[in-house]
Amino acid sequence: MSTKASNGIKRVGLAPNLTSGFYGQDIISVRQFTRDNLDYIFGVADEMRAVVRRVGSTDLLKGHVLACVFYEPSTRTSSSFIAAMSRMGGSVIPINEVRYSSVTKGESLPDTIRTLESYADVIVLRHPEIGASEVAAKYARKPIINAGDGVGEHPTQALLDLYTIRTDLGKIDGLHVAMVGDLRYGRTVHSLARLLCLYDVRMTFVSPEILRLPLDVMNEVKDHNLPVRETYDVSDVMADADVLYVTRVQRERFADQAQYDEVKDCYVITPELMDKAKEQMVVMHPLPRVNEISYAIDDDPRAAYFRQMENGMYIRMALLAAVLGKA
Amino acid sequence: MSTKASNGIKRVGLAPNLTSGFYGQDIISVRQFTRDNLDYIFGVADEMRAVVRRVGSTDLLKGHVLACVFYEPSTRTSSSFIAAMSRMGGSVIPINEVRYSSVTKGESLPDTIRTLESYADVIVLRHPEIGASEVAAKYARKPIINAGDGVGEHPTQALLDLYTIRTDLGKIDGLHVAMVGDLRYGRTVHSLARLLCLYDVRMTFVSPEILRLPLDVMNEVKDHNLPVRETYDVSDVMADADVLYVTRVQRERFADQAQYDEVKDCYVITPELMDKAKEQMVVMHPLPRVNEISYAIDDDPRAAYFRQMENGMYIRMALLAAVLGKA
Amino acid sequence: MSTKASNGIKRVGLAPNLTSGFYGQDIISVRQFTRDNLDYIFGVADEMRAVVRRVGSTDLLKGHVLACVFYEPSTRTSSSFIAAMSRMGGSVIPINEVRYSSVTKGESLPDTIRTLESYADVIVLRHPEIGASEVAAKYARKPIINAGDGVGEHPTQALLDLYTIRTDLGKIDGLHVAMVGDLRYGRTVHSLARLLCLYDVRMTFVSPEILRLPLDVMNEVKDHNLPVRETYDVSDVMADADVLYVTRVQRERFADQAQYDEVKDCYVITPELMDKAKEQMVVMHPLPRVNEISYAIDDDPRAAYFRQMENGMYIRMALLAAVLGKA
Repeated sequence: MSTKASNGIKRVGLAPNLTSGFYGQDIISVRQFTRDNLDYIFGVADEMRAVVRRVGSTDLLKGHVLACVFYEPSTRTSSSFIAAMSRMGGSVIPINEVRYSSVTKGESLPDTIRTLESYADVIVLRHPEIGASEVAAKYARKPIINAGDGVGEHPTQALLDLYTIRTDLGKIDGLHVAMVGDLRYGRTVHSLARLLCLYDVRMTFVSPEILRLPLDVMNEVKDHNLPVRETYDVSDVMADADVLYVTRVQRERFADQAQYDEVKDCYVITPELMDKAKEQMVVMHPLPRVNEISYAIDDDPRAAYFRQMENGMYIRMALLAAVLGKA
Repeated sequence: MSTKASNGIKRVGLAPNLTSGFYGQDIISVRQFTRDNLDYIFGVADEMRAVVRRVGSTDLLKGHVLACVFYEPSTRTSSSFIAAMSRMGGSVIPINEVRYSSVTKGESLPDTIRTLESYADVIVLRHPEIGASEVAAKYARKPIINAGDGVGEHPTQALLDLYTIRTDLGKIDGLHVAMVGDLRYGRTVHSLARLLCLYDVRMTFVSPEILRLPLDVMNEVKDHNLPVRETYDVSDVMADADVLYVTRVQRERFADQAQYDEVKDCYVITPELMDKAKEQMVVMHPLPRVNEISYAIDDDPRAAYFRQMENGMYIRMALLAAVLGKA
Repeated sequence: MSTKASNGIKRVGLAPNLTSGFYGQDIISVRQFTRDNLDYIFGVADEMRAVVRRVGSTDLLKGHVLACVFYEPSTRTSSSFIAAMSRMGGSVIPINEVRYSSVTKGESLPDTIRTLESYADVIVLRHPEIGASEVAAKYARKPIINAGDGVGEHPTQALLDLYTIRTDLGKIDGLHVAMVGDLRYGRTVHSLARLLCLYDVRMTFVSPEILRLPLDVMNEVKDHNLPVRETYDVSDVMADADVLYVTRVQRERFADQAQYDEVKDCYVITPELMDKAKEQMVVMHPLPRVNEISYAIDDDPRAAYFRQMENGMYIRMALLAAVLGKA
C-alpha cells in the first residue's frame, strides 16, 4: 500500500488496512483496524491522557496545522479535534461555514480538499454524504481523517467507544455488550459492533422491532461466530451486561404515535434499572442524549458517558500524532 | 466554599464571594467581588497591560485551552476573550455555531457544558437566558466565566468599565459618575452601578422617564448611602461629571415616535456639550454606539471608549489567569 | 508618508506607495507596489516556502495576533491567512460571523476596526463594498490588509498570481500572458494586469465580446506601451502563451442562453488544447473552477492552480511578517 508520507499523489484502495503503520495514512473506516493497530492507538491514547492530566499539554505537533472541515455542524466532534490539536501544540483552521463558501459556488470536493491540503498537514472531514471521505482521501496527498460521512462511518467515535470500554473495565475480551435503542439508523452502533468483531465478546441488541440491527451488520457479527441475541426490552439485559451502550429512540422513526408510546419506556435507563445492574459495568452513550438516560444516574460511577467524551480527545490526539508520524 | 481546583464535583451557592481566591472559581456575578478582590484583579490587569505593550504576549497559559461558547453572537466579547487567551500563550475552541449544534437536537445546557469541560480547562459562556451561567457553574468542575446571560449579568464588562475609570482617572473614590441613556434595560449600567456601591462615589442617572433605573438597582445604591440624583437632560451633569457613561436610547423602547423625537437629542454627546465638561474626565460607552456619541469627539483625549475595549482584553487576561491559578 | 509603527493616529493618502518599507503599513492596492517592493516580498515568500517545506513552521510571529475579519465568506482566502499566521507561530481571531455581530446592530466599520485593533496587531479585512479597506486603513493605527473589497481590489491574490508565474517560469520579463474568460468582472484579472504593467510582458485577452476587459484597465496597459491583443477564442493563444490565466465564464452574464451556448466551449481548457501548448508554460486559475478547466489535466505538470494556492500561503506569510516588522 502506498503512503502519503512521500508527498506523492497516492491512489489507494477503499479503506486499506493500516498494515504499514499510521504515518501518512488516511483514517476512513473501522475496517482498516486490526487488534494490533487498536492496541497501538490505545497505548498512545493512554500516554496522551497521562500527559494531559499531569501537565495539560505537549509540544508534539508544534508547527503542525490541522484543517477541520465540517460540511455539517458537530460541536462535539469538532471541539474534540480542536482540543486534541491544541493540547499537542498544533494549530487549527476551523472551517464550519462550508455552506457559504466556494462549495456553494459549485466547487467539487476534490478541489476543496486539494486547496486545503496546500495550507494544512492533515484534514479532518465531516460530510453529509456517504463515501465523501473516501473520495477526499483518493485525491489528497495529506492524511484525511473521517469525522463522519452521512449514514456511513464515524471511525474515531467507534475507537473512543472501544477505548472507553477497555479503560473502564480493563479488558474487552469476555465482556457482554448490550446495545440499546435505535440500532437501525445508529451509525455509532454499527461501527462499534464491527470493531467488537475483532474481540471475543457476547452481544445483545435491544431495540423495537422496526429499529432492529440491519441485516448486513448482524451477518458480519455472526460470521465471526460471536454469540448474539436480540430482545425488545432493556430490562432483559440489565443484570448481565458489562457494557450498556444506549442510543436514542426517536419518535420520528415510528409511523404512528401509539406504536411509539407503547415502546418508549423500555429504552429509558433509570436508577431503578441500574439497581439490577452489576457493580462493575458501564453505561455509555454517544451523546447528545434527550430522555433515554435519567439525569439521576449521572453521578453513578458506572455512568461513563462524560468520561467517553474526554476519551474522545485522547483518541484523536493519538490518531493525529500517528498519521503525522509523531506518535 | 468549595473550589473547583480539586477537580471534584462542586455544588456552590449562587454567585459566592471570592473569599478563598480565584483559583478554580466561577465568575458569575459582580456580587462576588469585594474591593480587595477588585484591587487584586486590577493589579494583575496592570501587569498584563505592561507585558502586552512591552512584548505583546506571555506564555503564562501555554498548553491551556479555553472553550468560548456563544449561544448568541457577540463579536466584541468573544474576540476579546480569544485575544486574551492568545496573548497568554493559550488556545481557544471557538463555538459560535451553537444554534446548529447538538443544542438544536435538544441537548441540555449541563450536558453541553460537561462535554466541553472534558476538552477545555475553562469555559466562557454567553447565553440569551438569565441564570444560564449559574446553571452551567453548578454542573461544571472547571471554572465558568459568565460573558453575559440575557438581561442578567455581564460581570467582565462591569469590571473593565471600572478598571477604565481607575486607570484613566487614577482613583474611584470621590468621583461623580453620571450614567446616561437607557438605564432601564442596560445590563452594563446595572452591573457597573452595583460595583460602584463598593466605593465612595456620587451617581447621577440621566434618562427619559420611561427608561429610568429599575427600582431594585436604585434601592441597592441607596442602601449603600451613596448620594444619588436623577435627571432627564445630560446637559445637567456635563460640568460636574468625572465619568459620563453613555448608553444607547433605542427608538423601539418608545410607544410613539413623537415621544422619542422629543427626548432623543438630550442624549447625544456633541463637541458643544464636551466644551462644558471638566478637563480631567472620561466619556465611556460599552459599544456599539449608533448616534449617541458624535464621531467628532473621538479624538478628544477624554473619549475613553476605545481604551475601554483595550482594557477589556487586560481584564479578561487577568481573570483567565486568576481562575486557572496562574496570576 | 507617515507610518503606523509609531502607534500614533495616521492619516495616509489613498493606497500610498510603500516607499519607506512595509513595517506598519497597510496593504490596500496593487498600485502601492513597485518592482523593488515585489522583489522584496517574493524573496521573503521564497524563504517562507523553504522553511515550511523543511520544518513546517517558524516562531517569527509568536505572540502576535491577527484579526481575520470577513464580512463575506471566503474559505480559501481566510484559511490561507489563518495557515500563514499559524505557521509563523502567531494567533488568529477568526471573525466570520460579522452579519450576526454588532455590525447588524448598526455599528460603523471604523468603530468595528478601532475595537478589533485594540485586541490585535494586524487586521485582514474582506468586505463586500469597494473602498472598505481604504476606510478601515484611514481609521486604524494597526496595519490593514485588504483581502478583497467588492469589485475593487484583492491585492494579495494578484501578488500570489505573479509570484506563481515567477516561481514556476523563473522570470516575468519577456513572457506572453494570456488571460481567458470573464475579463470584464474578474477582479483578479484586473489586479494581475495592473501588476504586470511593471514588467516587460506581452498580454492577450481572450473573452466573449460582452466580457471584454474594461476600458480603464486596457488603457492602463496601453499607457505602459506593452503589446496587447484581444481575441474570442482560446485556441488562438494556446501555442504561444507562457501563462494561461483562466477565469470562469458565468452563464448569468449572458442575456440569452443561445449566446452563452455559442461561446462556452471556447473557454474550456481540455487535454486536446494542452497538446498545442508549449512544454514550459503554466495554466493558472484563481479557483473555484467549475467546468472551465478539465479535471483531466490536473496531473499535467503545467497545471499550476494548486501550486498557486500553496503560494498564496507563502505570500501572506511574507506580507504579515513584513507589515509587523519581522521580515
